[in-house]
Amino acid sequence: ETSAKIIDGKLVSGQIKDEVAAEIARMKDTIGIVPGLAVILVGSRKDSQTYVRNKKKACKAVGINSYEVNLPEDCTEEEVLKHIANFNDDSSVHGILVQLPLPRHMKEENILNAVSIEKDVDGFHPLNIGRLAMQGRDPLFVPCTPKGCMELLHRYDIEIKGKRAVVIGRSNIVGMPVALLLQKANATVSMVHSYTKNPEQITSQADIIVSAAGVANLVRGSWIKPGAVVIDVGINPVDDAESPRGYRLVGDVRYEEACEVASAITPVPGGVGPMTIAMLLSNTLESAKRIHNFK
Amino acid sequence: ETSAKIIDGKLVSGQIKDEVAAEIARMKDTIGIVPGLAVILVGSRKDSQTYVRNKKKACKAVGINSYEVNLPEDCTEEEVLKHIANFNDDSSVHGILVQLPLPRHMKEENILNAVSIEKDVDGFHPLNIGRLAMQGRDPLFVPCTPKGCMELLHRYDIEIKGKRAVVIGRSNIVGMPVALLLQKANATVSMVHSYTKNPEQITSQADIIVSAAGVANLVRGSWIKPGAVVIDVGINPVDDAESPRGYRLVGDVRYEEACEVASAITPVPGGVGPMTIAMLLSNTLESAKRIHNFK
Ligand SMILES: NC(=O)C1=CN([C@@H]2O[C@H](COP(=O)(O)OP(=O)(O)OC[C@H]3O[C@@H](n4cnc5c(N)ncnc54)[C@H](OP(=O)(O)O)[C@@H]3O)[C@@H](O)[C@H]2O)C=CC1
Ligand SMILES: NC(=O)C1=CN([C@@H]2O[C@H](COP(=O)(O)OP(=O)(O)OC[C@H]3O[C@@H](n4cnc5c(N)ncnc54)[C@H](OP(=O)(O)O)[C@@H]3O)[C@@H](O)[C@H]2O)C=CC1
Repeated sequence: ETSAKIIDGKLVSGQIKDEVAAEIARMKDTIGIVPGLAVILVGSRKDSQTYVRNKKKACKAVGINSYEVNLPEDCTEEEVLKHIANFNDDSSVHGILVQLPLPRHMKEENILNAVSIEKDVDGFHPLNIGRLAMQGRDPLFVPCTPKGCMELLHRYDIEIKGKRAVVIGRSNIVGMPVALLLQKANATVSMVHSYTKNPEQITSQADIIVSAAGVANLVRGSWIKPGAVVIDVGINPVDDAESPRGYRLVGDVRYEEACEVASAITPVPGGVGPMTIAMLLSNTLESAKRIHNFK
Repeated sequence: ETSAKIIDGKLVSGQIKDEVAAEIARMKDTIGIVPGLAVILVGSRKDSQTYVRNKKKACKAVGINSYEVNLPEDCTEEEVLKHIANFNDDSSVHGILVQLPLPRHMKEENILNAVSIEKDVDGFHPLNIGRLAMQGRDPLFVPCTPKGCMELLHRYDIEIKGKRAVVIGRSNIVGMPVALLLQKANATVSMVHSYTKNPEQITSQADIIVSAAGVANLVRGSWIKPGAVVIDVGINPVDDAESPRGYRLVGDVRYEEACEVASAITPVPGGVGPMTIAMLLSNTLESAKRIHNFK
């Protein structure tokens, strides 16, 4: 028997896209500016190509101009940096995104640091992360997937202040910034990772669990406190002979088990996934508004 | 009956100062460079003057040149920024420290951000904090008090990896960076603050407790798991009619109670306190070594 409320990321992301589209129309009408997002893709990984295609499609749907640069796998770091510098100087571009992962011969840190902090819509610049970590400072951009998790909690009126929260995973792009955001919202946060012993002892005390470990079926029903809220960021392929592709995508959480204990949960797919792109659009709009001082 | 081992910060800080002094002598002998620390003090708070005096004395003792600028309470932000700019350009200065708190009419953020990240020996620049938070990045400088806490754990051979750690307090200068450092060392970290309900439930599960709340007697014996290690960062004045000044300084932890449960504990004074200055000296040396590429 399923009791948890389903946190519908597909629905919410649709609402956010509508809101973003309306703001973009208002901005265009009022000051004649259209936000622009530049995407740099190096190499020809199939998954990265899909992500970039989806981002461009989403831009188009809300009225953001998108610019794409495709560079060959064996191009030099300097070439990537040159394109970033061009976009940094280009006033029609308000957001710059370098699709990760980069080829191995490039130093991710050098490339991400080159993106102007005013256009870092992914929010991955260390200066931005520092501001996220610090009391009394605000980041220019909140990283998209973490922002999407918070947005789901907010739109479902889930109280965060004073609650116990556990974040499983501590990557630069998901786990660590989610933990910092939950703490900024005055949750008491514990950070679980691969060195954590008996993680279920910690998760079973939490009012909010955010899992971003990338491990299918990691979080069992027994890991969850009755009534807790579960945000499942994981997107993990598992073998599935019945699927035409031979696999299907699942989260970190055993969904059926969790539904019996949690009060609310994000499904995979259709939970956090669609929020990430919606937040990218929202960050790009925010950037254009800030650069043009449009309120 | 007292059973906890005393973590002697006075002793360890003395060892570190000796090590720093020896390295400074070697550097001077080998390449003729003497590290320099510039301290900017605005206004005439008694406590700040004492801190600055102690820092200068400590510099002298290990062979670091110290430079001091005293500005009146009512000087402008621009004047402070001008002095910072001069020190940024001055090759005899390897560390720049702005004594906090600044007068209310100044924006701390603007002033701290002006310190060249290469000379930010306090480690308070958001770019530095961002690197501290991120996996695969390293800060140029670790903030002094947090670094002092970690150094005490290391020098007393206290294992951190895989342990449960709780940090009470999340300030930019102590709690938050301590939590990030413990996590980088692969502890499972929970961050407790003023919105945390029933903090004792969390602390009593921890193998390592770091308290930096600034609340006298906050951490009772019952908050501590038998055998846990307690690092007490708090320095709090409490009334004491028997003391000539009418008050004495205590930590956040009820020391006598804690001694009966903990396996090791820092006293106040003589625990973390003396480590902070030792780490400032160590950071200044590190900076000079890096700038002059001296190994
Ligand atoms: N919904 C979306 O839009 C997005 C979804 N994702 C998905 O989220 C998941 C995480 O992504 P990402 O953060 O990039 O992954 P990473 O591999 O970079 O990080 C995984 C983190 O989980 C921790 N971890 C791994 N195994 C365990 C375990 N058994 N128990 C506890 N912690 C564990 C790791 O710990 P340690 O640090 O010790 O190694 C690490 O911190 C993936 O499934 C990914 O596909 C990612 C981005 C966007
Ligand atoms: N040994 C040394 O060299 C140094 C010692 N110190 C000492 O360390 C202590 C902390 O300093 P600092 O970080 O600057 O102080 P702050 O006042 O900036 O921060 C205090 C932190 O503790 C939290 N807190 C306050 N009350 C409680 C409570 N009852 N329960 C749980 N958390 C609480 C606050 O939470 P919230 O964020 O919700 O307000 C805040 O995060 C002070 O005693 C200070 O004198 C400081 C620097 C150096």
